[in-house]
Amino acid sequence: MIILGIDPGTAVTGYGVIRVQGQRLRPVDYGVIRTSSELPLAQRLSLIHAHLAQLISSHRPDVAAVEELFFSRNARSALAVGHARGVALLAAAQEGIPVVEYTPLQVKMALTGQGRAAKEQVSYMVKLLLHLQEDIRPDDITDALAVAITHAHMGRDLELLLSKGEIL
Amino acid sequence: MIILGIDPGTAVTGYGVIRVQGQRLRPVDYGVIRTSSELPLAQRLSLIHAHLAQLISSHRPDVAAVEELFFSRNARSALAVGHARGVALLAAAQEGIPVVEYTPLQVKMALTGQGRAAKEQVSYMVKLLLHLQEDIRPDDITDALAVAITHAHMGRDLELLLSKGEIL
Repeated sequence: MIILGIDPGTAVTGYGVIRVQGQRLRPVDYGVIRTSSELPLAQRLSLIHAHLAQLISSHRPDVAAVEELFFSRNARSALAVGHARGVALLAAAQEGIPVVEYTPLQVKMALTGQGRAAKEQVSYMVKLLLHLQEDIRPDDITDALAVAITHAHMGRDLELLLSKGEIL
Repeated sequence: MIILGIDPGTAVTGYGVIRVQGQRLRPVDYGVIRTSSELPLAQRLSLIHAHLAQLISSHRPDVAAVEELFFSRNARSALAVGHARGVALLAAAQEGIPVVEYTPLQVKMALTGQGRAAKEQVSYMVKLLLHLQEDIRPDDITDALAVAITHAHMGRDLELLLSKGEIL
């Protein structure tokens, strides 16, 4: 199974493509899509959409994973993230890829076993689980890989439960 | 000049296409794009995008106009509007149509001459300016037509200033 994780943002969108091979996870591709604040918003969204569509058509992921967001305060940044998130979800839908969403809590639990894990701990686990030598910068890539790994783990748990006959 | 006004929303997106002929404004097309809350978000956004892309390719507007939004409180709805707004801006950018944004204040001023105008007053003026007989329902259409009319007025003011040599 190939999973595309996306951390959408108007200025910086992180992405990470991983492959699940049995019990192992392998990094396939990761990076950021940056757009200049000097461009009109619509053009920035168009660049993000085109880049993601191209990634999806190259890697043919089985699923796209994004973080489910809860904003309690900053409505301005919620709108900005919404713009980028909208075109990211669209790119997946247009290529017929299902989108799964995980809460930040689910991501932290899946990667560290702790809902209150620090950012550094998540980033450490991403590196470890994907056998990466180098540090991953910026955090947008870590977040994209983390949500992709979360889906891999959830899938695995589901398989386990299925094999035990605990769910249909 | 043909102007497409859009009032984006995940559940209901209003649109209005108007034509500016000299001093007159004519309604060309208006309506809503509704998506079911039973569909996955990515599919809803895909429907909105496809419908808007189709509208743009049928009517070939010179410009798309949307309201600039300021949310002070509800971050959750800001994110939801952001999703729909993102794919709307994208549809315009992909067709090479420039996007202009107007604040709610500019829309009220352009339509009624009053920044504190009530919703009913804006809706009355939309009907009057477009010589529409019937009431326009829902409000999402009125809002889309209102922002399109705002752009028509702004353009006219600009022409007037240009003809008076007040600006270059």
